[in-house]
Amino acid sequence: MNNFTFYSPTCFVFGKDTENEAGAYVKRFGGTRVLLHYGGGSVIRSGLLDRVKASLEKENIPYLELGGVKPNPRSGLVYEGIDLCRKEGVDFILAVGGGSTIDSSKAIAAGTVYDGDFWDFYEGKRIEQALPVGTILTIAAAGSEGSPDSVITREEGMFKRGASGDAIRPKFSILNPALTETLPPYQTAAGITDIIAHLYERYLTNTKEVEVTDRLIEALLLTMVHEGPRVIADPHNYEARANIMWAGMVAHNNTVGVGRSQDWNSHNIEHELSALYDCAHGAGLAVTMPAVFTYVMNHDVMRFAKAAVRVWGQQMDFDHPEVTAKAGIEALRNFLISIGMPKNFEELGAKEEDIPKLVEVLCYGDGRQGSISGFVTLNAEDCTKIYQMMV
Amino acid sequence: MNNFTFYSPTCFVFGKDTENEAGAYVKRFGGTRVLLHYGGGSVIRSGLLDRVKASLEKENIPYLELGGVKPNPRSGLVYEGIDLCRKEGVDFILAVGGGSTIDSSKAIAAGTVYDGDFWDFYEGKRIEQALPVGTILTIAAAGSEGSPDSVITREEGMFKRGASGDAIRPKFSILNPALTETLPPYQTAAGITDIIAHLYERYLTNTKEVEVTDRLIEALLLTMVHEGPRVIADPHNYEARANIMWAGMVAHNNTVGVGRSQDWNSHNIEHELSALYDCAHGAGLAVTMPAVFTYVMNHDVMRFAKAAVRVWGQQMDFDHPEVTAKAGIEALRNFLISIGMPKNFEELGAKEEDIPKLVEVLCYGDGRQGSISGFVTLNAEDCTKIYQMMV
Repeated sequence: MNNFTFYSPTCFVFGKDTENEAGAYVKRFGGTRVLLHYGGGSVIRSGLLDRVKASLEKENIPYLELGGVKPNPRSGLVYEGIDLCRKEGVDFILAVGGGSTIDSSKAIAAGTVYDGDFWDFYEGKRIEQALPVGTILTIAAAGSEGSPDSVITREEGMFKRGASGDAIRPKFSILNPALTETLPPYQTAAGITDIIAHLYERYLTNTKEVEVTDRLIEALLLTMVHEGPRVIADPHNYEARANIMWAGMVAHNNTVGVGRSQDWNSHNIEHELSALYDCAHGAGLAVTMPAVFTYVMNHDVMRFAKAAVRVWGQQMDFDHPEVTAKAGIEALRNFLISIGMPKNFEELGAKEEDIPKLVEVLCYGDGRQGSISGFVTLNAEDCTKIYQMMV
Repeated sequence: MNNFTFYSPTCFVFGKDTENEAGAYVKRFGGTRVLLHYGGGSVIRSGLLDRVKASLEKENIPYLELGGVKPNPRSGLVYEGIDLCRKEGVDFILAVGGGSTIDSSKAIAAGTVYDGDFWDFYEGKRIEQALPVGTILTIAAAGSEGSPDSVITREEGMFKRGASGDAIRPKFSILNPALTETLPPYQTAAGITDIIAHLYERYLTNTKEVEVTDRLIEALLLTMVHEGPRVIADPHNYEARANIMWAGMVAHNNTVGVGRSQDWNSHNIEHELSALYDCAHGAGLAVTMPAVFTYVMNHDVMRFAKAAVRVWGQQMDFDHPEVTAKAGIEALRNFLISIGMPKNFEELGAKEEDIPKLVEVLCYGDGRQGSISGFVTLNAEDCTKIYQMMV
């Protein structure tokens, strides 16, 4: 196991009706003037935003509002938020929404207290300071509620890039599984797929002797395999949603990823798809993962065989472990299809003729030197073949 | 799943040579005058204490010392520590040792800033304020490095009781698995048993639909079953020790225990043993757990069958699930014996004739009303039978 530090100081408030405690938690963590940041539509229609406002009013905490966050959140709104926070003396950002809203909030939080362009953080500068952020989560997916990460798309060039730093870990995150019951099945499934991807990205490691994190990742994958179909079959299954919601947080706050190298190439390869086609990140991952895993499988057949046996219930073929490994990847693919995710470029809305452009941005965009590194380092030729496998 | 809050703001610093960073972490978390609290013997002989002192001196942080913590730590030393901290204006407690030293440090931290008798906290008062505590862990066992808990034995009456509160969660915990390599095999095994008990106490729940935490607990149990024998066979197996050390933390910071009722009756029943005979807590648990589980098995046969199948690799007997459940408990018992733990009162140094006294203190001591509650509520007759099963 590699040396590591693990620091997850977020206070998680989990369960029914917990959104009504938002104001009290803002107060506990020192907020006196809040930016309420959200997307639109559903959080307004469902009455959630009103309940959160009422909880702030109950604590006499003044707030401003900035709505309009879109899936694959954009830099333009971040700049707008930073200006607003500076002008109005905001000292706390409260995100009401999913990963996109939380990531946009984190970007605003870091940018407000930084003299330069916030995009510096998305080109590799570590985030050391930020306004405090709290979240009220409305979809189990991105894991941003417990992570030190944020992903933003820069409109100019449509680059989708991530930034990181303990300073943007939320002070508190309110997780009420009931808030996710009104999601369309496709979004629920995309969230499930994103969580599964966060687990596989950590599972695919070159670090030896990491049984504890292997087992924990498998536990969460098994949970997703068990609970995913239940929630697709019945969107109002609170218990299934609760299990998925906690799994989604643990999957990504890195409890299960410490001390081991991680992959993240499925995410890298997918990010170009959602940046170009504005598809759901999880849907993009559903198409990406089986292709990537098939392509890199021979790098460590036994690792894929282990996932196949322990997670997907495959029989181990001791004479031909590659058969078992492949069966595990197929089981993953079939699972994702079964919950309603796309299986190829066509279903995703992607185009074969764009592959050279995708590869160009992926391997050479934003300072990259012709390859992406992870479980296996992939150059432009590798990435081209992987995108072709998705067609 | 039940509503819950989860807050684990400890910074974990894991890996080789990390004890040399102790001073820097004390500084990061605001310590300017430190009480260095420890047991004796091994931390001095191994040179660990000197390395920690050097790291404090490097940061120009003055420190006082209070050694002499014993296993099953006593209230007398806590009172001494509180007096010392008050007199000398200490503002940070640095524990160098195992669960006993950490628990004693937490008690001193809470007592120093409390006007009343610190024992109030061990009679049920929640700890709301405490001096900050940091830890350098020398044995994977108690999980106190990441928990809000402390267990102290009051000399007067030899009551062993626990206190709790987020205020005593360590600010940082340094976990270097190499520091545990010099432990005698018996202590290593007792630590493994304690971790397994923390997992079973959480596994035995009356809350339905908790697949995610069930799976996470099983993952950690599987890790212990895999890594335990490796470290007993080769005490210098760093990798096995590293896996056990992280499992021990995750087992007890409650990531895997949220949203579900828990048991803790094995701990309650054992506490009277280690209080009376001063045996190792883990050794006491090795004798206690199989007896308790056998006694309460029929309360939820399928839960024990699940552990038997998923953790202990038993075949499910679908016609007689109680056979499978029992086989799982036997597998646990045999595992504990295989790593060198005692199997009965005699091997533990306990005496059958003391059972009435044990039951009296357990069920009526310190304000209890004739029973202990948990997975199953156990009265004096139940507890008598359970102790008799251990003979």
